Amino acid sequence: MGFRVVAECPVTGARAGELTTAHGVVKTPVFMPVGTQATVKAMAPFELKALGAQIILGNTYHLFLRPGEELVERAGGLHRFMGWDRPILTDSGGFQVFSLAELRTLSDEGVVFRSHLDGSRHVMTPERAVRIQERLGSDIAMCFDECVKYPTTYEYSMGAVKRTLAWARRCLAAKTRDDQLLFGIVQGSVFEDQRIACAEALMEMDFPGYSIGGLSVGESHQEMYRILDCLKGVLPKGKPRYLMGVGHPSNLLEGIARGVDMFDCVLPTRNGRNGTVFTSRGRLNVKNLSLAEDFTPLDPDCTCYACRNFSRAYIRHLYKAGEILAMRLCTWHNLHFLISLVEGARRAILEGTFPEYRERFLRTFEG
Amino acid sequence: MGFRVVAECPVTGARAGELTTAHGVVKTPVFMPVGTQATVKAMAPFELKALGAQIILGNTYHLFLRPGEELVERAGGLHRFMGWDRPILTDSGGFQVFSLAELRTLSDEGVVFRSHLDGSRHVMTPERAVRIQERLGSDIAMCFDECVKYPTTYEYSMGAVKRTLAWARRCLAAKTRDDQLLFGIVQGSVFEDQRIACAEALMEMDFPGYSIGGLSVGESHQEMYRILDCLKGVLPKGKPRYLMGVGHPSNLLEGIARGVDMFDCVLPTRNGRNGTVFTSRGRLNVKNLSLAEDFTPLDPDCTCYACRNFSRAYIRHLYKAGEILAMRLCTWHNLHFLISLVEGARRAILEGTFPEYRERFLRTFEG
Repeated sequence: MGFRVVAECPVTGARAGELTTAHGVVKTPVFMPVGTQATVKAMAPFELKALGAQIILGNTYHLFLRPGEELVERAGGLHRFMGWDRPILTDSGGFQVFSLAELRTLSDEGVVFRSHLDGSRHVMTPERAVRIQERLGSDIAMCFDECVKYPTTYEYSMGAVKRTLAWARRCLAAKTRDDQLLFGIVQGSVFEDQRIACAEALMEMDFPGYSIGGLSVGESHQEMYRILDCLKGVLPKGKPRYLMGVGHPSNLLEGIARGVDMFDCVLPTRNGRNGTVFTSRGRLNVKNLSLAEDFTPLDPDCTCYACRNFSRAYIRHLYKAGEILAMRLCTWHNLHFLISLVEGARRAILEGTFPEYRERFLRTFEG
Repeated sequence: MGFRVVAECPVTGARAGELTTAHGVVKTPVFMPVGTQATVKAMAPFELKALGAQIILGNTYHLFLRPGEELVERAGGLHRFMGWDRPILTDSGGFQVFSLAELRTLSDEGVVFRSHLDGSRHVMTPERAVRIQERLGSDIAMCFDECVKYPTTYEYSMGAVKRTLAWARRCLAAKTRDDQLLFGIVQGSVFEDQRIACAEALMEMDFPGYSIGGLSVGESHQEMYRILDCLKGVLPKGKPRYLMGVGHPSNLLEGIARGVDMFDCVLPTRNGRNGTVFTSRGRLNVKNLSLAEDFTPLDPDCTCYACRNFSRAYIRHLYKAGEILAMRLCTWHNLHFLISLVEGARRAILEGTFPEYRERFLRTFEG
């Protein structure tokens, strides 16, 4: 298990790599669909394989509350439970504890919170987050971290960085499984010195990979890129870098250009269920009246199942009629779009044409 | 285009046949999944093919209201619009006009009604029902008929039979497409003499197939079987017989035993979305607490995608979590169950073992 860079763009520093896990090799850069509750919403595992998903994400917070990590362990682990035999990454639950749960009480020990489902009281600590992820049996686990809101003060963020580092040490100490990679998470909001200090302290603990958390939480794209720029030269070249919760097409290419290897986001699945799809020429709202008699595919440049078989008019009809197939087709298309975009970036890095690839895509997509 | 019987059970009269349509041959007996709004709910066309669906049903009433038959015609017809290249049967809208629409005014001319969607006023006549189905481009169309509720009086039912016959004549006269088979519909509630008279009058008009409407509307199974028994010797042996709206597993086998060739029903798809599945040992409610740690398939005897890949515990979790995949898997399984059941009946008829097949299934399913 481990990571190696197989090519690097001499202009931007974008990397193509291979991340070996207990369930196989992930070719990076990679976009990971989110399977919050042990399913990527509206999709079946065979469809995810068909569209080229190499690795998916599971949410520790959600699976801990329902159906519970003990049940998943008894089922033979998350892979077996959900019928997915390729790699799985789990987050630590940190993000959801700070965004979804109710009545949080934070201390250096951990977080006491109430479930957003039924109000039941729970305690999450670094040790518990590791233990849950080990029982879920994911290939890549995350350290429990404190995610701060945006905007925040320099002082508050500094406290969160310190707690995140202390918790990272405890996560490492609690780890028992050899077949699971544990990533450290860099916090520090939009403060470059905090980001750099956090990254350097994590690197001393020598994690097999580094996540960048606390971005895409309300700050501007330019602020996000500034933080990625400052971390680019700090994080070790031989370890994978995972930008958490980022999935806007432009952000993916700009992230790759700044040395990021892994991404996840609910955007393609959530937008798909809401009837918004990505196309090579920007976003499209499937419910628009202007599509009522448009018998062309969602994206004429796309080769996904939805675009090969159905028209905008048909998918609009399905939406208006409240049919599940509408959500399925738009989700399928959006995932295909992002996965293909990142696959294309990898190919371009290998061929030495990444800067042109990025420019060509952004000109059409944003213009 | 036409129908031929290839084998008949000497004990029961159950038939195996081949119905040739403009989009291919349908091997009978056959169960037809219902695609109300130009989609079989929760399923994609490639999945329907994978589980062996030979022909699906579209609802004229629903498609007329939304998106409208003109749009479907401009899309190239219903097959092209919904990405299904196998045969399609459309009903006439009669059943929905009498069960779903509001403020109906019935006359010999036709029915004035208000849409259940937006209250808009519409007129449906036999001529219009034929015209709509021709524009949809289905392979098999139905005459516009009057469906009476159960229970009803002998006199009311007699009036509906007369109107249904007059409308059948007008449908035949209105027909213009040579590539579409138009079936007559036998009405007459639970009154044997009316059923026989209706069938004989339709046979004089010489339809390429005969539907049996107005059953499975509240009467007992025994009453349904009595009507099928009385029609069995009346309807012509060389024409297909379609029992409308019937899909309970026992009803399918008892219908086949009474010479029925075609069935449709929303039961497998509706039950699937509600978390009720058929198994070889009867029905199962997927939400039951007793399944929480049951890591066996929905039906251990089943070979469908859901049963090959997922456990009851997982599907229960998906349901509790409100995930679309739960509805997909249960719908898939239920359709597979009914289609396989009817395929098995066909094989048994060809092999001369239909009575044993029926008995074996019913003993396990109902016992």
